[in-house]
Amino acid sequence: MRDVYVIGCGMTKFGEIWESSFRDLFVEAGLKAIKDAGVDHLDSMYVGTMTSGLFIGQEHVGALMADYLGMAPIPAVRVESACCSSGMALRMGFLDIASGNSDVVLAGGVEKMNDGADVTYALSTAADQEYEVYQGITFPGLYALIARAHMNKYGTTRKQLAQVAVKNHHNGSMNPNAQFPREVTLEQVMNATLVADPLTILDSSPVSDGGACVILASEEIAKKLQKPMIKIIGSGAATDFLALHQREDITALKAVKVSAERAYKMAGVKPSDIDIAEVHDCFTIAEICILEELGFCEKGQGGKFTEQGHTSLEGKIPVNTSGGLKSKGHPVGATGVAQVIEVVEQLSGKAGQRQVKNVKIGLAQNMGGSGASSVTHIFSLM
Amino acid sequence: MRDVYVIGCGMTKFGEIWESSFRDLFVEAGLKAIKDAGVDHLDSMYVGTMTSGLFIGQEHVGALMADYLGMAPIPAVRVESACCSSGMALRMGFLDIASGNSDVVLAGGVEKMNDGADVTYALSTAADQEYEVYQGITFPGLYALIARAHMNKYGTTRKQLAQVAVKNHHNGSMNPNAQFPREVTLEQVMNATLVADPLTILDSSPVSDGGACVILASEEIAKKLQKPMIKIIGSGAATDFLALHQREDITALKAVKVSAERAYKMAGVKPSDIDIAEVHDCFTIAEICILEELGFCEKGQGGKFTEQGHTSLEGKIPVNTSGGLKSKGHPVGATGVAQVIEVVEQLSGKAGQRQVKNVKIGLAQNMGGSGASSVTHIFSLM
Repeated sequence: MRDVYVIGCGMTKFGEIWESSFRDLFVEAGLKAIKDAGVDHLDSMYVGTMTSGLFIGQEHVGALMADYLGMAPIPAVRVESACCSSGMALRMGFLDIASGNSDVVLAGGVEKMNDGADVTYALSTAADQEYEVYQGITFPGLYALIARAHMNKYGTTRKQLAQVAVKNHHNGSMNPNAQFPREVTLEQVMNATLVADPLTILDSSPVSDGGACVILASEEIAKKLQKPMIKIIGSGAATDFLALHQREDITALKAVKVSAERAYKMAGVKPSDIDIAEVHDCFTIAEICILEELGFCEKGQGGKFTEQGHTSLEGKIPVNTSGGLKSKGHPVGATGVAQVIEVVEQLSGKAGQRQVKNVKIGLAQNMGGSGASSVTHIFSLM
Repeated sequence: MRDVYVIGCGMTKFGEIWESSFRDLFVEAGLKAIKDAGVDHLDSMYVGTMTSGLFIGQEHVGALMADYLGMAPIPAVRVESACCSSGMALRMGFLDIASGNSDVVLAGGVEKMNDGADVTYALSTAADQEYEVYQGITFPGLYALIARAHMNKYGTTRKQLAQVAVKNHHNGSMNPNAQFPREVTLEQVMNATLVADPLTILDSSPVSDGGACVILASEEIAKKLQKPMIKIIGSGAATDFLALHQREDITALKAVKVSAERAYKMAGVKPSDIDIAEVHDCFTIAEICILEELGFCEKGQGGKFTEQGHTSLEGKIPVNTSGGLKSKGHPVGATGVAQVIEVVEQLSGKAGQRQVKNVKIGLAQNMGGSGASSVTHIFSLM
C-alpha cells in the first residue's frame, strides 16, 4: 500500500446556515480545501452524506458535487454509513490513493438538516427500521438506554455525563466554526429540558448544516508542497449488530473497539501514544463509552476519567478539542471529515486558542447509528 | 495495483418479490455468492443502494447487511451513485483489494422498490432536485427529451428504439432470473401505452425488487480455487453535468464515453476486442446512445446498428445477453452487479440458452441518472 497524506482542509461554519444550500455547503468546503492544498486538479472524489434523500430530496450526490465543484468528469461517488459517512469517505479516498489508482483525492462530507424535513425520522433510518424504528424509538431514546445501562453497571453519574458537555463546550467556545461556541455549566446541562431520561437537550448534539473536505495525496505530491507532512498511519473500520437489542452488552461499542484496534495495528501505535483525539460525542454518554473502547481508560471508567479532567485541554489525552459534535455541531454527513480537520490543525499547530502542545499523533473516531459502524483514523506529523 | 478476480456470483430473481424484504434480498444474493465462491470469510463489504431511505426508511445499509449476513464486525459501507450504485460498489471492492488492504471482498447491490413508496419521486432524486425535479420532470421525461433530440439530429427511428426492447426481451426470455422473461414484438412496443413521447411503457425498464452480489479476491486467493480465472482488467468511472439542460449536446453521454475510455486504457483493449457487453438500457434510447459512446458504432448510428442486428446474440457484439434492465428488471441499486454476473456467466460458459460462443473479454457499463455518472468494467477470462 502506498502512503497517503492530508494536504489541505476546508470547512464551513456549522449551524443553521439558511443562506447556503446543500450543494453550496459542500462547494464552499471543497474550494477552501483545494485552495489550502494548492493543487490544480483532483483525480477523484468521495462524498459522505447520510440521508440527503430524506432531508432534501437529492440523491446522486457524488455527481452533483463533482458538477458544482467544476470537477466533472472525474470519478465521484457518495459514501453512506449513517453518521460516519464522511469518515468512511476518507477511508475510500485513502484506499484509492493507497492502491495507486489516484494521486490526489477529495474526501468530504455534507448535510443540510435544517431545510424542512422531519429530522428525527430521517435520523432514525440509521437504526433498524423493522425492529427499532417501527416500535417508535428515536436516537435520544437509544442513547438514553445505553446511558442508564452504563450508570447501573458501572456507577457512572449524572454529573459525569454533564462533564462531557461542559468540557466540549469550553473547547468549542474557542472554535470559530462551532455552532454553539459558548460555555455551559454542570447545572445548566443537568437542569436542561429532558429529552430521554437521563439525557437532556444539553447532553445531545444539535441539528446542523455544514460541509467539510480534505484533500489527500500520494507521498510524491505531498512532498512537493513543502508543508508539514501529515500522514494517515492507520485506518480501521468495523461493524456491529445494527439493533441495540441484539447486542450482548449495550454499554459496549464493539465496532468502535475493533475499528480502533485495526487502526492501532496498521499504525503500529498504542492508545498511550495518542496525543489528542476527536471522538463521536453525539450524546455525552457516547464519548464516555468511546473513551473506554479506544483504550484511553478501563471499561466502565469513562465517566470517572472525564470527571478527573484527563480528557480536558490540559489533561493527559485531550478529547474533542474542537468542541466535538456537542458544541461544534453535527451535520451528520460532514462530521467525520470535520473531526479529521481538527486533528490536522492540532498536528499543524494551527488550532489557535485551543492548541495543545507537542501534538505528534492524533486520532479521529467517527461512528454510525447507535454504534453499528465505526471508523478510526490515526494521523502523524512526519 | 494488485490484480483482482471475480470468484463467485449470486443473485435473486428480479421482479415483484413480495415475500422478501430489503435485507432478505441482499442476504439471499450474498449467501449464494459466498457459496459459489467457496470462501469461508470476507475482509470487507460494499453495498450499492440508490435510495433505501425513501423506498423503505432505512439507511446505514452497510452495517445492516454485514449484520444480517452474519459478517459483523467486518468493515461494510453503502455506496450510492443513483442507478450505478452497485457498479461503483464493485469499483470500491476492486480498489480495496488492489491496494492490498483486503484479500476477499463482497460487492453487491440491492433495491426494494415495490414496498409502497412513491417510486417516481424516489427515482427523481437522481436528477437535479433544484433545477429539474422541482419543475416536474421525471426520468421517462428526461429520456424522452434525449430520444427526440437523437431522432431529430441523427434520424433515429421509432422502430429502431423498439428494436432494442425486442432484442432484450428475446434474450431475457432465456434468463430464469428475469422479471419479464417473454418476447415482445415491434408492434407491441410501438403501440404500448405512451409514457413520455416517444417512449412507451415497453421502451422503459420496470420497477423491480432484487439483490446481486459478487465476491472479489486477490490473485493468490483466486488461484487456490482451481476455477476459471476471471480478472477485472479495466475499471473506469466518470461524471458529467447532473442536469440535462447544462450539457452541450443532450444526445451525448459524456460520462459513459470517459468511463469507457478509462476502462479500455487500463485494460489495454479497444472496443473491437469486446466479445459481449451488458449496458445500462434503462430506456431503449439509453442503449442506443451507449452503443455509440462505448465505440461499438459511430456517433448517431446506434439505432441503425441495432436494426442491422449487430447487437443480437448472433451479432458481432452481443449486447445485454441477460435481457438487460428492460427484460431482466432494474432494482436500481442491484443492477450494476447483476450486469457483472451476466458477463461472468458468459465468460464461464454458464449462460445456458443465451450463451455466446468464444467469449474471452466482456464489458459491463452501469449509469446513474440521465447519465451524470457512469462506471465501466472490463473482464477477461485468463
